Amino acid sequence: MNIPDSNLPRIVIIGGGFGGLRLARALKGKPFQVILLDKHNYHTFQPLLYQVATAGIEPDSIGYPLRKIFEGQKDFFFRLAEVQHIDAQLKQVDTSIGSLKYDKLILATGSGTNFFGNNELEANAMSMKSIPEALDIRSLLLQNFEQALLTKDLDERQALMNVVIVGAGPTGVELAGALSELRKHILPKDYPDLDVRRMEVHLIESAPQVLAAMSDESSKDALAGLEELDVLVWLDTFVESYDGKKAITKDGKEFLAHTLIWAAGVKGETVEGIQPTAIVRGNRIAVNQFNEVLEMNDVFAIGDVAAMIDEANPRGHAMVAQVAIQQGERLAKNFILESKKKDRVPFVYNDLGSMATIGRNKAVVDLPKKHFKGIFAWMVWLFVHIMQLVGFRNKLLVLMNWTYSYFRYARDTRLIIRPFKKKISDDIPQPS
Amino acid sequence: MNIPDSNLPRIVIIGGGFGGLRLARALKGKPFQVILLDKHNYHTFQPLLYQVATAGIEPDSIGYPLRKIFEGQKDFFFRLAEVQHIDAQLKQVDTSIGSLKYDKLILATGSGTNFFGNNELEANAMSMKSIPEALDIRSLLLQNFEQALLTKDLDERQALMNVVIVGAGPTGVELAGALSELRKHILPKDYPDLDVRRMEVHLIESAPQVLAAMSDESSKDALAGLEELDVLVWLDTFVESYDGKKAITKDGKEFLAHTLIWAAGVKGETVEGIQPTAIVRGNRIAVNQFNEVLEMNDVFAIGDVAAMIDEANPRGHAMVAQVAIQQGERLAKNFILESKKKDRVPFVYNDLGSMATIGRNKAVVDLPKKHFKGIFAWMVWLFVHIMQLVGFRNKLLVLMNWTYSYFRYARDTRLIIRPFKKKISDDIPQPS
Repeated sequence: MNIPDSNLPRIVIIGGGFGGLRLARALKGKPFQVILLDKHNYHTFQPLLYQVATAGIEPDSIGYPLRKIFEGQKDFFFRLAEVQHIDAQLKQVDTSIGSLKYDKLILATGSGTNFFGNNELEANAMSMKSIPEALDIRSLLLQNFEQALLTKDLDERQALMNVVIVGAGPTGVELAGALSELRKHILPKDYPDLDVRRMEVHLIESAPQVLAAMSDESSKDALAGLEELDVLVWLDTFVESYDGKKAITKDGKEFLAHTLIWAAGVKGETVEGIQPTAIVRGNRIAVNQFNEVLEMNDVFAIGDVAAMIDEANPRGHAMVAQVAIQQGERLAKNFILESKKKDRVPFVYNDLGSMATIGRNKAVVDLPKKHFKGIFAWMVWLFVHIMQLVGFRNKLLVLMNWTYSYFRYARDTRLIIRPFKKKISDDIPQPS
Repeated sequence: MNIPDSNLPRIVIIGGGFGGLRLARALKGKPFQVILLDKHNYHTFQPLLYQVATAGIEPDSIGYPLRKIFEGQKDFFFRLAEVQHIDAQLKQVDTSIGSLKYDKLILATGSGTNFFGNNELEANAMSMKSIPEALDIRSLLLQNFEQALLTKDLDERQALMNVVIVGAGPTGVELAGALSELRKHILPKDYPDLDVRRMEVHLIESAPQVLAAMSDESSKDALAGLEELDVLVWLDTFVESYDGKKAITKDGKEFLAHTLIWAAGVKGETVEGIQPTAIVRGNRIAVNQFNEVLEMNDVFAIGDVAAMIDEANPRGHAMVAQVAIQQGERLAKNFILESKKKDRVPFVYNDLGSMATIGRNKAVVDLPKKHFKGIFAWMVWLFVHIMQLVGFRNKLLVLMNWTYSYFRYARDTRLIIRPFKKKISDDIPQPS
């Protein structure tokens, strides 16, 4: 992989998401050689993917070049690579661009969409875990509207306009809200010869409430907000099949829609070579309080892919950005402590709260001891998300886009730049 | 195609580029039913494609949704369609989404890349006539740099970094300038472990000067500007072959480069069904002073695809935006005059001048009676291009990006969102 040898211990990090990024940055100027591997050359700000999918902001605003983030960081190397296998005996990672020895290896590989083994769903549903996937959704939505114009068959036209979202976690709720705002403010102007009011946005959830991970108040407020926006919410409803045109639920309901977005499950993105006994529920990797993978040496996992199981968290921590960020920071500090022959400190999660936006002026925020909603919650949501976006330019761009959209009810990024035809792989080409 | 019948004469326009757009807008509120067909759902501001290719601005800033442009225009219909054939007897257009009758048909189909029948070049060179193509160039450039890091073979590394641009018209000159600024300000920070100074930017031109269509002063100034930026300019040099790694010229020069961008020729994008005798040099369609296609009735051509041949313009007008815009506007006025039973007015080109930018603070401008260069020319270039960008938001975005890049020497859009693997078609999927 053509990385210079060094006397420093080598820390190899797989994945430049929230966890991997924080870990690598926190090691700046410390006595380690740090190598970051990612299959994209940019960090994706996943909380705003739904805005790209609904033509609210451009993809370049939520991607940030990894090389730029680490500009000037000494003893740091980024490589665009897909990891294929880990050999814990040889302490080596095998990748699409060759092998690499490590002293410490950190899996910060995040999570992917979980279709729970349903191949038909996987083939026909859209998922939204990356910028290319979000762009595919944007293209498909717009293509379906263009097609809806062409048919005289009213059922077919209806099915082309309808969108089904499965899963009412933050992603599903935010998508449903953004889609109903598109329906209200944008699509009627773009498609004056379609009766856009007929477009249905269905949000289907197998649990008895939306935002099940948040407080009861937030769930209730979010549900009320969604209904105000005319989102059709189906609770206690389990989607069993989808052939690309019709979704069928366990209790026999049928939904005609040419777009179905699957936001109903995620699973850890593990790597071949991890001790099989360490793989637990949700395809996550069991780790101890120091993020060490059980029964492996010098292999760590942080963020979504790690399951730190204890009494308070029998299924591990929530798969959210804050956990990844805090684990990355804790792990960096522990590496530094170790290098000074000091004792490491076990990870303790500091819950800063959670939030979700439903639409214009509508959001719900749970702080550890407080819940609030409405326009103030929405402004908090905006502020927190903009502050977290990496890079000055991206903050400005997103702020500008939002201000513009807010005052003009406009979304100007509804371009079908790459038509969506079938599931496109975004693998990195192999070096020749 | 599901377009309502109307008592108004139906004008069908193929292509939403500069010419088609102006024509359709100028017919607003006039007694015609106007139908615009395009294979993209957005207008592309082609003069800034080179900025997308070199990671200067995001693609969404130079694309603008066609439906948004025509918001509220009565008796106007847009359809996303690829035109397959014209039947002038039946007065009908056959497209990927069905057939359409017309009373008047306008070809505003623009131009595509001309490889002059060289299949090897066509298979291996990059072209830059659309946003997807510009994004492919951006991805390829960045991928090649990532690969250059991996090899220990110095020749291979050099070839991965080098870029050859063939054709020193405005596109080639602007690309070469932007690439050498990338080399100077951005790439060394992104790739500290590569000796980026070794990267070569070759600009190869078969004519004895760059910007041959502009004044001699502009050609000289542009050449001096390019050489100041360390662009290697090869005049009187004709590229004969390129296998993806090595370009060979007629006089036997060899250039090793994994990226070759072909900006050496364009040809009219005609449509099947045009009278063969009307197809002239450069695959353009011969038209009279009223933009009527020779020997056809009620079929018109404007812009790049049209060749209006007269004594002053034995090869037709230059294939530039201004001609298309003025022909679109003239043709609209002529339709309106005709509808009032008045005499039409033949087209006369009002040459507003031409310009090209070479880099930061460097541009050349030819006004009909005046030539100037340097920072003032550069500001004129900026101003004219920003004013022409469709839509308030896009103007703001581009202005912001440029201001930011100017003061910080930064380009933050260098994301490989869709890796480039092979030439990807951006056809529209057929309706199912």
